[in-house]
Amino acid sequence: MRQTTAYVALSADEPLTRQPIHRRDLRDTDVAIDVTFCGVCHSDLNEIHRSGNKPLVVGHEFVEVVSARGTGVTRFQIGDPVAVGNIVDSCGDCSMCLRGQENYCEQFPTLTYGGTDRIDGTTTQGAFADEYIADEKFVYPLPDRLDPAGVAPLMCAGATVWEPLVRWNAGPGTTVGIVGLGGLGHLGVKFAHALGAHVVLFTTSEQKAAGAISLGADEVVISADPAAMQKQANRFDLIIDTASAPHDLTPYIRALALDGTLCAVGALGSMDFDPIALLIGRKSIASAGSAGTRGTQAMLDFCNEHGITADVEVLPASDVSTALTRLERNDVRFRFVLDMKTP
Amino acid sequence: MRQTTAYVALSADEPLTRQPIHRRDLRDTDVAIDVTFCGVCHSDLNEIHRSGNKPLVVGHEFVEVVSARGTGVTRFQIGDPVAVGNIVDSCGDCSMCLRGQENYCEQFPTLTYGGTDRIDGTTTQGAFADEYIADEKFVYPLPDRLDPAGVAPLMCAGATVWEPLVRWNAGPGTTVGIVGLGGLGHLGVKFAHALGAHVVLFTTSEQKAAGAISLGADEVVISADPAAMQKQANRFDLIIDTASAPHDLTPYIRALALDGTLCAVGALGSMDFDPIALLIGRKSIASAGSAGTRGTQAMLDFCNEHGITADVEVLPASDVSTALTRLERNDVRFRFVLDMKTP
Repeated sequence: MRQTTAYVALSADEPLTRQPIHRRDLRDTDVAIDVTFCGVCHSDLNEIHRSGNKPLVVGHEFVEVVSARGTGVTRFQIGDPVAVGNIVDSCGDCSMCLRGQENYCEQFPTLTYGGTDRIDGTTTQGAFADEYIADEKFVYPLPDRLDPAGVAPLMCAGATVWEPLVRWNAGPGTTVGIVGLGGLGHLGVKFAHALGAHVVLFTTSEQKAAGAISLGADEVVISADPAAMQKQANRFDLIIDTASAPHDLTPYIRALALDGTLCAVGALGSMDFDPIALLIGRKSIASAGSAGTRGTQAMLDFCNEHGITADVEVLPASDVSTALTRLERNDVRFRFVLDMKTP
Repeated sequence: MRQTTAYVALSADEPLTRQPIHRRDLRDTDVAIDVTFCGVCHSDLNEIHRSGNKPLVVGHEFVEVVSARGTGVTRFQIGDPVAVGNIVDSCGDCSMCLRGQENYCEQFPTLTYGGTDRIDGTTTQGAFADEYIADEKFVYPLPDRLDPAGVAPLMCAGATVWEPLVRWNAGPGTTVGIVGLGGLGHLGVKFAHALGAHVVLFTTSEQKAAGAISLGADEVVISADPAAMQKQANRFDLIIDTASAPHDLTPYIRALALDGTLCAVGALGSMDFDPIALLIGRKSIASAGSAGTRGTQAMLDFCNEHGITADVEVLPASDVSTALTRLERNDVRFRFVLDMKTP
């Protein structure tokens, strides 16, 4: 077994503790990754606060340097800069995996933390740590033109909004709405704008309007204003809803054009809406989560070409509690990234 | 005012009464239609049983002969055989109307009965009658190769399943599920088969299996059998759900393939499902109702080319109470049509 140091959640309600943890020995196709930056995702918060899964190391969007490699590794050399997201294995054989959509693996993908290793049955532990071990299949070359800290959140937040934008053809001539301007939403705005769509941000907060425009939004609509929402009727080809708290989807459905789609990526516990609103205009509600290897690579290539990274606030890893506390009250623009080299 | 004779619902719970009713005088672009056959739709039953809308004449899928025409009519001559569905007017100016989707008119389409006439404000009265008056824009030439009685249900039941099949690309290489084998479902099976899709009927009734195969289904799945339903996981590009009673949509969502769509056309009062089932495989739930002029004409052309009509049981109009009673207990294969010439 290898050993590294990590920020460990020992229970649902105490601060993370920096302490040694074990990592598996390198398998043939594994690489060891020296973690320099790791993003802080809302799901990290949720998993820390959930009971019954401790001890747990969270962190599932990270970079950067290959420090060791298994004997069968073909894609990476020691010293290569790389990035990893929230999936580190899958069955590889099902209809989803064969289409590069390992995020929807019929046997369920192995998550970067809190998952069950498909070979030894242990629980995977995340990247709030000095080192992570992953099969090279789920490791991506770090785009050469991008800042590593800003790439880390692309691997989860970015991938999650990228796939639905592509699936529903965001591009020139389309009108795309993004609901919420957090980690996912701000990348949704950047991506949709770079794809050539007309981009409208829906937010409850007037204070976010200027920021959204500077990120690439063409318009901002205050979603708490019923009159403003009514004016959006039948406009949108696609709305990506990144809001994670349950809310009535009906006003967004009404904002869709004929054959439009509302895709929720905020992992809603329930989806409440008026079915008649869906019927009038032959509209669709969809959901999506994370991305497969194909989509993730395509997103990274696109970001490299367009110079897109997440807007991040980098904190030393020793400030992880500050990051989690501030994230909990949405005091972040737009994603915290931990600098693991200042532990 | 013109006068005709109709089967009138005078209250929510007494048999229809045959009696004279008024029709509007012909406007410039109106035609008068001598009704020979009119289908009996589930929504007719619902409207008869609803309180507060009486007196009411139902019936919104009918044929056949133009008996008079306004001075500005250009598409029809007296004696022409025609067909009419459940929409007889719309605003004509909105984004939906301009795309030939008058069924989703932003000002709401004028329904064939129970709607509000856009010019004189009266309530429209349906085609359980000897004559109907309609603007020629919403009147269609009767396909020359098809039996008129079998065409009548195409105008509502057929149009409703046609548009989603086309919208979601049912055709060679796709696997399409149809839920329910009533008026809508049996036409869904016929259309999907003729479009070249692999067709699977979902039904609660084993007795319907043989009938479904003869209509063009390649397989039948008993939806009440959980093991049979589980075997369908990740198979379907499209499922059209024609069941009108509320039910859990989750088993059908699980049956969808990556990027698949479940489209409910049964006008469900609620749509209950597990949002996680929607997320895993980036699946969509949609709804649709009726069809616009463009889709209706395309469906009629397709039916004429492929020799498709509804499978109907024709009853004399004087047996309308029998038809309604039997429809209420689902004792129909697959659509009742009233012969208005045997009143």
